[in-house]
Amino acid sequence: MKRALDPTDIVRYEEDGPKVVLLDQRRLPDEEVELECRTVAELVTAIRELAIRGAPAIGVAAAYGLALAAARGDDLDEAAAALASSRPTAVNLAWALAEVRDEPTPERARRLHEEEVERCRAMAAHAAGLFGPGTRALTHCNAGGLATGGYGSALGALQAAWERDLLAHVWVDETRPLLQGSRLTAWELDRAGIPHAVIADSAAASLMAAGEVDCVVTGADRIAANGDTANKIGTYSLAVLAAHHEIPLYVVAPTSTIDPATPDGASIPIEYRASEELTSRFPARNPAFDVTPAELITAIVTEHGVQSPVALV
Amino acid sequence: MKRALDPTDIVRYEEDGPKVVLLDQRRLPDEEVELECRTVAELVTAIRELAIRGAPAIGVAAAYGLALAAARGDDLDEAAAALASSRPTAVNLAWALAEVRDEPTPERARRLHEEEVERCRAMAAHAAGLFGPGTRALTHCNAGGLATGGYGSALGALQAAWERDLLAHVWVDETRPLLQGSRLTAWELDRAGIPHAVIADSAAASLMAAGEVDCVVTGADRIAANGDTANKIGTYSLAVLAAHHEIPLYVVAPTSTIDPATPDGASIPIEYRASEELTSRFPARNPAFDVTPAELITAIVTEHGVQSPVALV
Repeated sequence: MKRALDPTDIVRYEEDGPKVVLLDQRRLPDEEVELECRTVAELVTAIRELAIRGAPAIGVAAAYGLALAAARGDDLDEAAAALASSRPTAVNLAWALAEVRDEPTPERARRLHEEEVERCRAMAAHAAGLFGPGTRALTHCNAGGLATGGYGSALGALQAAWERDLLAHVWVDETRPLLQGSRLTAWELDRAGIPHAVIADSAAASLMAAGEVDCVVTGADRIAANGDTANKIGTYSLAVLAAHHEIPLYVVAPTSTIDPATPDGASIPIEYRASEELTSRFPARNPAFDVTPAELITAIVTEHGVQSPVALV
Repeated sequence: MKRALDPTDIVRYEEDGPKVVLLDQRRLPDEEVELECRTVAELVTAIRELAIRGAPAIGVAAAYGLALAAARGDDLDEAAAALASSRPTAVNLAWALAEVRDEPTPERARRLHEEEVERCRAMAAHAAGLFGPGTRALTHCNAGGLATGGYGSALGALQAAWERDLLAHVWVDETRPLLQGSRLTAWELDRAGIPHAVIADSAAASLMAAGEVDCVVTGADRIAANGDTANKIGTYSLAVLAAHHEIPLYVVAPTSTIDPATPDGASIPIEYRASEELTSRFPARNPAFDVTPAELITAIVTEHGVQSPVALV
């Protein structure tokens, strides 16, 4: 059955337990299985192992986690520290924990969750104005409802363009090593009925050269004060390729992803993950993110509108 | 046991059978298993399904295949047509079949095989002059002994640089979708004792930006008369990224890969392979090759020396 994901399908708090319940994204698209986290430690593991991923979504999960800690009578400072350090690159973790720290309740966390989804809808409405009729967009990783706790950032923008009859096709980078594109983005586009095709990450350049890509649209994991943007490894590659082919690159992300305390991309901590994600036998270098300099980004779209990437803060 | 691959380990003709025997590259690095082809149809399937791959290596295999057809008393025109059409992009198939057509014997095919390996050694000696001390090279797909029937083109050049104490490290693009980099190139470098690390294809750009790549070295599947070069999907992407970061790109390939009858890259047929190589469930576009325009190639190295990519023929 094709239908839009409800935000509570992706992550929610249940007083009965209490527990934080996640759609386990590691098992998509083959199985739709929920994972129940009854302790902060279980939730930290779930975030680290990518049962839930995407900068806004892990922020939402962390907010629910702090409510869980409070309900259990855990030490809140310890719980917040554990959740904040579960992954290093996305600033949304620290942001969401700070937001709910004074009121670590299910109600407050649910409000934060609803606000993130509302921000996505606002971003999408702004971003839709960037697309002309018949747009063939390319996206990387998954910046859909799964990544934001509902509706999506880059995929939300594409959904809005689709509803306005402006979107013809989506090229989906498979996004190695963990295939968030071919597993998650294609699954979301399939449910939404939006025409799409998965490509190897390395095939994007040849599609651009053939004139088959009108724009590149991605989410973000952390945006520095100067507009430099950390996102899934390969985003910087797409940015250079898009500039070479004179194709616009739009970053769609809520303001919860902007970190005024990080002056530039060089200051963003990049997560390195296990070699085994790439090869079981030979040495590997496996950065999870790269940094795209602001000058390669055509526009950053937040809930406040379409902005020049330079001097955001 | 680490040792260089012998050319007859990769592909050989055995009169006892008769048969063409291949190291089955689909099963590397997990298993070293030989595949015996007793008919041209079996060899065509082996080439199509990539039990043997790499432009020079499939040329050598086709030459042995024509000797097999002659030994069996098959129609040689039919056999040559079947072998030539097993894969569309590499010109070496047609070249090798034309070379042995008038003398389709095991001896003639073995001589062609030996000459291809000698060409690799000559290319490597020329290419070694391109490397400075401490070079950190990046390579894509597999252009090693496995791809040429012995010694290798791009990997042969890196082997020669290593023997001259000029090579510090090799970055190995994993090369989606079939992982010829992480499966085959890393396996060859491991056997040769050359320091290396596998990366996601999309991570090359961030390594270049970090100043960790001194040159990009690849093989080729077909080089047009004007120097435009078809090679594994992702090579064009690397070429654009290398140019942006002012890093040289060297293509190392024997003259058997140059096709004087193909005027430019637009005339090179590009093989599209099954969607299933990328995703079992969603639509996909899966080109096996892309074309790099001559102006993005710093030099093409053949057995005759280091050449400007423009006006090769």
